[in-house]
Amino acid sequence: MISKNQLKLLRALGQKKQRKALGQFLVQGEKNVLELLESPLITKQIFATSEFLAQHGKELQGFDCIEASLDELTKASTLKSNNAAIAVVEMPVVQEPKAQGLMIALDGVSDPGNLGTIIRLADWYGIEHIVASNDCADPYNPKTISATMGSFGRVTVTQLDLPRYLEQADLPIYGAFLEGESVHQTEFSAQGILLMGSESHGVREEASKFVTAKITIPAFGGAESLNVAMATGIILDNLRRQHSA
Amino acid sequence: MISKNQLKLLRALGQKKQRKALGQFLVQGEKNVLELLESPLITKQIFATSEFLAQHGKELQGFDCIEASLDELTKASTLKSNNAAIAVVEMPVVQEPKAQGLMIALDGVSDPGNLGTIIRLADWYGIEHIVASNDCADPYNPKTISATMGSFGRVTVTQLDLPRYLEQADLPIYGAFLEGESVHQTEFSAQGILLMGSESHGVREEASKFVTAKITIPAFGGAESLNVAMATGIILDNLRRQHSA
Repeated sequence: MISKNQLKLLRALGQKKQRKALGQFLVQGEKNVLELLESPLITKQIFATSEFLAQHGKELQGFDCIEASLDELTKASTLKSNNAAIAVVEMPVVQEPKAQGLMIALDGVSDPGNLGTIIRLADWYGIEHIVASNDCADPYNPKTISATMGSFGRVTVTQLDLPRYLEQADLPIYGAFLEGESVHQTEFSAQGILLMGSESHGVREEASKFVTAKITIPAFGGAESLNVAMATGIILDNLRRQHSA
Repeated sequence: MISKNQLKLLRALGQKKQRKALGQFLVQGEKNVLELLESPLITKQIFATSEFLAQHGKELQGFDCIEASLDELTKASTLKSNNAAIAVVEMPVVQEPKAQGLMIALDGVSDPGNLGTIIRLADWYGIEHIVASNDCADPYNPKTISATMGSFGRVTVTQLDLPRYLEQADLPIYGAFLEGESVHQTEFSAQGILLMGSESHGVREEASKFVTAKITIPAFGGAESLNVAMATGIILDNLRRQHSA
């Protein structure tokens, strides 16, 4: 059963302010919770259905588990469905990553679903670090975590002063623009930063001045744009076909 | 003002059964309605705010427009926001497309958002025809139309007996599987069908037996899969880098 106080905590962690104050966040849904168990993140508690607990007894050994009905879990959850398990997790202390290898930088990407999808993509293409401007979506927003499909445990997202970070980075910076060199022609370095802007404003001037190469995805039809997560995926694929991890 | 009967019609068109019975569908939101005006589709009526009507007076000439408040439009709409305009549109008679050029085939892609995103991608990569199994999401679902970001007017989606269609198609059929040849190595023909399956089941046996080449997007990290729309985008980019439209 979920106690009144526990329910209050779960509800509170749906809000950014409370997540920050408490230093905790939620991981919800069967797949994400199972991935959590495999990750180095510190899990405080897991609320789950009896079926989930029985089915994953082995993986759950050593974790503080509380049985709850699906009804209770759905009430406590920020998601509409997929609520067999909800975990309360300690927010990790993320160091500012050294600018090396292949990285992603996000300038003002404010939709948590897009951020989560980009985390999943980073994981697919073997990229460990994302740096994000302070006005990007919260990496610990339940919608972000949900969209990562379990990749949140393998990719770090650091919110920071993006222009400052780009300025000090001794790496080529590939900025995605509508008018740049075709990614089909670009010769990518083995190390570099892929800089993506928001759908509405693109990469802002403060960040774009550190771009060393403007790149673009060639269009062949009538659509005006691609979603930022989609564009990130297509560019990463172009990058990786030249430089495997 | 939206009359009671008009409101009833708009509400009805949120449902597939009613769309089919009435042979009409909804196009909602500023960008999508403006794209509609440029398309060959037949618009029955446009409900819009006075601001929208004033701002686009020129484009709206010759259309049957009804002024309504944003409140009324939001009540009538299936979307939560972006309701400056709602259009009632005649469902076009879509002929089964001849199997030629570059096409997309979808097997059981049931999420309207994914279908809409794939329509937008098709438009970006200059593909005019999508064939979809009968159990795919409805191409005229408001969520599908919304996710196309205006591309619904430039790409046809035909629901049909997919295995039968693939059997008679005299084209290479590239099927996306988790274990196939890397798309970075595949030599694509200039004409062909890209066959994508659902996220949960992949391409089903009835369709997969007509596949001439199994292809896959190489992974470099820990993520297990990519969303079907994302995978479609990445594969189309690989295809188009070899064969421009």
